[in-house]
Amino acid sequence: VPNLSELGERKIIGALRRLLDHGDLVLGFEDDCAAIPLGSRYLLITTDVVNRATHIPAGSTPEQVGWYTAACNLSDIAAKGGRPLGLVVAMTLPRRLQASFVLGIARGADRCCRAYGARFVGGDTKEGPDISLAGTAVGVTAGRAILRRRGARVGDVVAVTGAVGRGGWAFRHLRSDRGALDLLMCPRPRVPEGQALAASRAVTSCMDISDGLAASLAQLTQANGTTFEIAWDHLPLFPRLRREPMAVQRECALYMGGDYELLFTARPRVWPRLQAGLRRRRMRATAIGAVAEGRNNILLGPGGTEVLEARGWEHFR
Amino acid sequence: VPNLSELGERKIIGALRRLLDHGDLVLGFEDDCAAIPLGSRYLLITTDVVNRATHIPAGSTPEQVGWYTAACNLSDIAAKGGRPLGLVVAMTLPRRLQASFVLGIARGADRCCRAYGARFVGGDTKEGPDISLAGTAVGVTAGRAILRRRGARVGDVVAVTGAVGRGGWAFRHLRSDRGALDLLMCPRPRVPEGQALAASRAVTSCMDISDGLAASLAQLTQANGTTFEIAWDHLPLFPRLRREPMAVQRECALYMGGDYELLFTARPRVWPRLQAGLRRRRMRATAIGAVAEGRNNILLGPGGTEVLEARGWEHFR
Repeated sequence: VPNLSELGERKIIGALRRLLDHGDLVLGFEDDCAAIPLGSRYLLITTDVVNRATHIPAGSTPEQVGWYTAACNLSDIAAKGGRPLGLVVAMTLPRRLQASFVLGIARGADRCCRAYGARFVGGDTKEGPDISLAGTAVGVTAGRAILRRRGARVGDVVAVTGAVGRGGWAFRHLRSDRGALDLLMCPRPRVPEGQALAASRAVTSCMDISDGLAASLAQLTQANGTTFEIAWDHLPLFPRLRREPMAVQRECALYMGGDYELLFTARPRVWPRLQAGLRRRRMRATAIGAVAEGRNNILLGPGGTEVLEARGWEHFR
Repeated sequence: VPNLSELGERKIIGALRRLLDHGDLVLGFEDDCAAIPLGSRYLLITTDVVNRATHIPAGSTPEQVGWYTAACNLSDIAAKGGRPLGLVVAMTLPRRLQASFVLGIARGADRCCRAYGARFVGGDTKEGPDISLAGTAVGVTAGRAILRRRGARVGDVVAVTGAVGRGGWAFRHLRSDRGALDLLMCPRPRVPEGQALAASRAVTSCMDISDGLAASLAQLTQANGTTFEIAWDHLPLFPRLRREPMAVQRECALYMGGDYELLFTARPRVWPRLQAGLRRRRMRATAIGAVAEGRNNILLGPGGTEVLEARGWEHFR
């Protein structure tokens, strides 16, 4: 009987999805966010756990921990093009923890929610051996306009919001740079961008890249049966990453994760108009490649063409 | 600086509530379930953590663990009179756990959801030292008909659905009775009852009694500024509890928790009609006392009048 470390998180999720196939249900376990039909729109619901050991670097303030917990979850609502409404956080906490730490977590989560029009509305506290924060966000779509993982077609433009490699750079510089912790723990979920992408009706697939760009592309490949060709020169690298050796740049931009940007595909005919519309609203999106029909996801790299590995940030491995 | 074990869970929740007072928001931290205005109704959202150490008796099947996680959360939706829509479960799992155990949890949670018209729609898995399952349920009210904790008035009838002491009896008989584990782990959340109570518009306050009847009455006291007089002879005891010594009966019925029944108040004038309406739909509710204006919650007991203690199932103590 296999255990979790042998199977890996994604295989578990796949098995759960097959077990609980609801037929009429939109998304379910295939996406990080479920959508339930509710009147003329979809109710979105997503959950993400933040554990001290695996997610919270030493020295983090409780406010940063709270922001991070909210941001992870709001990012999944953003990736569906939804408007976030509320967040609850179920907190498992050691009994020796200072009460002010808990209030700080709540303050940070509330601040992040308010920045995106949502509200931190409650939670649950339980005693446990270590800090574990299970955030759940709910949101709604505007009508039935929703972004999905599935829908990419060969020839589509592949694009990403913001910059890539910020999370990876920050993780590597936690000791050497005073601002790195805040860069890592206080990502900006792309909520307005997601809503704009959904409203455009021009986006064929979308997800966030919190697990890393290469891992996210591998997941889109699995969902769509297509592959991707990404041009290294087009990647909107986090500026400070450019000062690093090329091997570090690649690792941070492609494999380390921690970036809460949206990765999406759009038909090439509508892409210029979509990008211009985003730019008018001061939202940044960059075309980084195209949907292809090769055997592998490819990086047209600095040193020639190479295969993008499926590895990224995955638990139980 | 006080730590959590000095403060107790309810004081933490109180501090969180004050910190995050949203003014226009319904319920928030005051209830176990938050309500967010959404068009013509309320979106309900609630979260409850189930930890192995504190909630899962040895020998529990994964299906029971999954059912329990779903039931705790659906009970909070029921206590608001809502229709549950979906459940997500963020699972923290040790890497040596068998994959079949995880699938069993999902199966149990899904079964419970389906029994109440909801669906288990997804989740998240993370690695951690011990099993911790953070369930979050969402639901909606029918129009703005919602049950609240606040609203009890002096003279109102106090009533409870089903029977009390089932959870306590089961907990005490885990080793001696083969069916006890199932009684404890597979409670029936009172979803149809909650919806009927909300539709009646006759209910002035409501909550579930998962923390124990006395602790729940204490929480209603805090929310309403009223007290309660409960008649021991009227309590609908779990039948097998009657064979136990009186001290055990009292402890199980009043203080041990684990019963997922609804405790509610209603105006005395409408109570007979409300109870008859419930009975026609094969729902059981029993009047157990009245809302009073004394200094303490009182049990008109087998051995005279006595004060109901505020203790029950609370963490961090």
